[in-house]
Amino acid sequence: MKVLVINAGSSSLKYKLIDMDTECVMAKGLCERIGIDGSKLTHTPEERDKVVIEKDMPNHSVAIKLVLDALTDKDHGVIADMSEISAVGHRLVHGGEFFSGSVLITDEVKKAVEECNPLAPLHNPANLTGVAACEEAMPGVPNVGVFDTAFHQTMPKKSYMYGIPYEYYEKYKVRKYGFHGTSHNYVSHKVAELIGKPIEELKIITCHLGNGSSIAAIDGGKVLDTSMGLTPLDGLVMGTRSGSIDPAIIPFLAKNEGLTISEIDSILNKKSGVLGISGVSSDFRDLSAAADEGNERASLALDMFVHSVQGYIGRYASIMGGVDVITFAGGVGENDIATRAKILAGQEFMGVKIDEAKNNVRGVDAEISADDSKVRVFVVPTDEELTIARDTKRIIKG
Amino acid sequence: MKVLVINAGSSSLKYKLIDMDTECVMAKGLCERIGIDGSKLTHTPEERDKVVIEKDMPNHSVAIKLVLDALTDKDHGVIADMSEISAVGHRLVHGGEFFSGSVLITDEVKKAVEECNPLAPLHNPANLTGVAACEEAMPGVPNVGVFDTAFHQTMPKKSYMYGIPYEYYEKYKVRKYGFHGTSHNYVSHKVAELIGKPIEELKIITCHLGNGSSIAAIDGGKVLDTSMGLTPLDGLVMGTRSGSIDPAIIPFLAKNEGLTISEIDSILNKKSGVLGISGVSSDFRDLSAAADEGNERASLALDMFVHSVQGYIGRYASIMGGVDVITFAGGVGENDIATRAKILAGQEFMGVKIDEAKNNVRGVDAEISADDSKVRVFVVPTDEELTIARDTKRIIKG
Repeated sequence: MKVLVINAGSSSLKYKLIDMDTECVMAKGLCERIGIDGSKLTHTPEERDKVVIEKDMPNHSVAIKLVLDALTDKDHGVIADMSEISAVGHRLVHGGEFFSGSVLITDEVKKAVEECNPLAPLHNPANLTGVAACEEAMPGVPNVGVFDTAFHQTMPKKSYMYGIPYEYYEKYKVRKYGFHGTSHNYVSHKVAELIGKPIEELKIITCHLGNGSSIAAIDGGKVLDTSMGLTPLDGLVMGTRSGSIDPAIIPFLAKNEGLTISEIDSILNKKSGVLGISGVSSDFRDLSAAADEGNERASLALDMFVHSVQGYIGRYASIMGGVDVITFAGGVGENDIATRAKILAGQEFMGVKIDEAKNNVRGVDAEISADDSKVRVFVVPTDEELTIARDTKRIIKG
Repeated sequence: MKVLVINAGSSSLKYKLIDMDTECVMAKGLCERIGIDGSKLTHTPEERDKVVIEKDMPNHSVAIKLVLDALTDKDHGVIADMSEISAVGHRLVHGGEFFSGSVLITDEVKKAVEECNPLAPLHNPANLTGVAACEEAMPGVPNVGVFDTAFHQTMPKKSYMYGIPYEYYEKYKVRKYGFHGTSHNYVSHKVAELIGKPIEELKIITCHLGNGSSIAAIDGGKVLDTSMGLTPLDGLVMGTRSGSIDPAIIPFLAKNEGLTISEIDSILNKKSGVLGISGVSSDFRDLSAAADEGNERASLALDMFVHSVQGYIGRYASIMGGVDVITFAGGVGENDIATRAKILAGQEFMGVKIDEAKNNVRGVDAEISADDSKVRVFVVPTDEELTIARDTKRIIKG
């Protein structure tokens, strides 16, 4: 069975075709600048050279048709006919309180996702455009929705409520939702498997650290708390996002800089985080290089990130009453050896001891804690597309 | 030597006259509705009945003169002549980056405090009005300024910077300052004394929990991090303040509720926290009573507060690489036995074990951890006025 995984943004569409018998990726690609001049499709069949196709994509329907053409092309295609695609799995960002798991997309589901649009105005409408394009291009092929928020729906109310008037929850469902759920779900189950213990018996802290970063406290397989909130702006200092700040900073900047609320929102999302602090880059490799060359603000940005992650680990250990396993995933979590070492330094008081030699690893499943560390620490590369494809297969098979 | 301690708000003025030879309070009181119709002074000489004096107080100068009259009154006074007052200690809220300790108030100091006005627009100008009134009413008597922010000035940059564009720090000094510094200072030194160890050798987490709440991580006598930020809105869920929230909630509410930025600011400061969640009260005694009667939102508010404090304790243990002592002060910290027990529950993983019988204590210095608890836990009632008076005496004596 072959599953096409789709991640549709407002002007982009990422895809992966996965053979679910082997769980191997057959091809992947990206449509860029959909609806904008100069749109192009970059298609990469597994273990072959990528192909760049420059064609007009006025909308997502045209983009999907080009993707299907590429997948079935006699030169760079990987399947003979699009009928080989048994189902499409869609990344859907915001499922609000409606969805605590993946679902077969029906008209009712689409209506519920639309109701969540105000909570994710940039993402949800784009995701639904991707669904509609697939329905049009592949009639009869089932579509499955896998939500970024669903895995976090187990959070108790004390974790997901904000300290603001209760009426905003009642009127608009303003609360913490959490994101990267597909990753936290995959990683926590994967590490339980690596350890050989049922997830129900483990207290796990999963650190998904990349350009966007979030951490989750997973107690017995259920999320007890997570760092992202109503939106992916909350929590840790990130690549370009501020994370949690004193809310009073917003009125302060509005008054002193003469900025509108939406200008500030944009600054906090796109010009803040380690980019805003360093003035150098949102990429941790650039920051490390700059810090090595003596750039103090780049060093500061890295220090703030470490401080922020370290604090969340302690916080989540406390609210779970301890921790058995800590995992690192995401671009930074999987590859940044020095940052992992700094985050874990000094945590012996709660039974965490890193093995420097074992930590010298990138992008593979690996235990990095010392043999006598009470808390086990792992690098577990995340695979959101595979998780989406697995959920899609499971739901299609009933 | 007698020191008058003054805490001047925009329309109020609190005072305490302290005999520094015995450190006993001689009298205390409060002027209310200064500059507003119906102003009154409530004066309480130590161990005698309070006196309410209803007189017009068009400004702070008149208020101070009434206070001096009350202190020297032949019936309810406690000193024969105002010349017995050797110095006045003022609580000053925001010292920005200028002051890392208490100072004799000079023209230069007043200028620097004024420069911090934008950081505390409600408090600093009022504080300075109190200083001016004392200078006028008591010419020649020295005034000392004790800042809420000063003790936290040891924080490293990685703690005090926010993940926002660096230019806002350069232009406006937007950063974390922390508040309740006088309390965190007093309590951390007091607990070191109780333990009989130099503060330089201790990792202390001080929890100041009241209507306003903050926590500090104090490593070797220096604040490493604290929960309040640019303003006292940041950090924990409080009586009426939201604490940290997803910054994106502000644009969300502005758009969906049609609120202005300053209306939201006011809601987050005055109508949020446990009051906003419960809809009952900002007072923890009211909340406990309501929760006992089955009010679910009151229970939720209490649970959120505990969750928030517990998380900060873990967070600060992690960033200090462990903790030796945890202290509780403030109205809730000193008196709320049940809340302390809930905060400390399940923290054995980092060596914290509460003794339920010892925890059954209110408002006195007391150790509440079990004999075999690796981390020692204390109730240490705070005394901000005494700390201000002590600093004032120390500075006057040179």
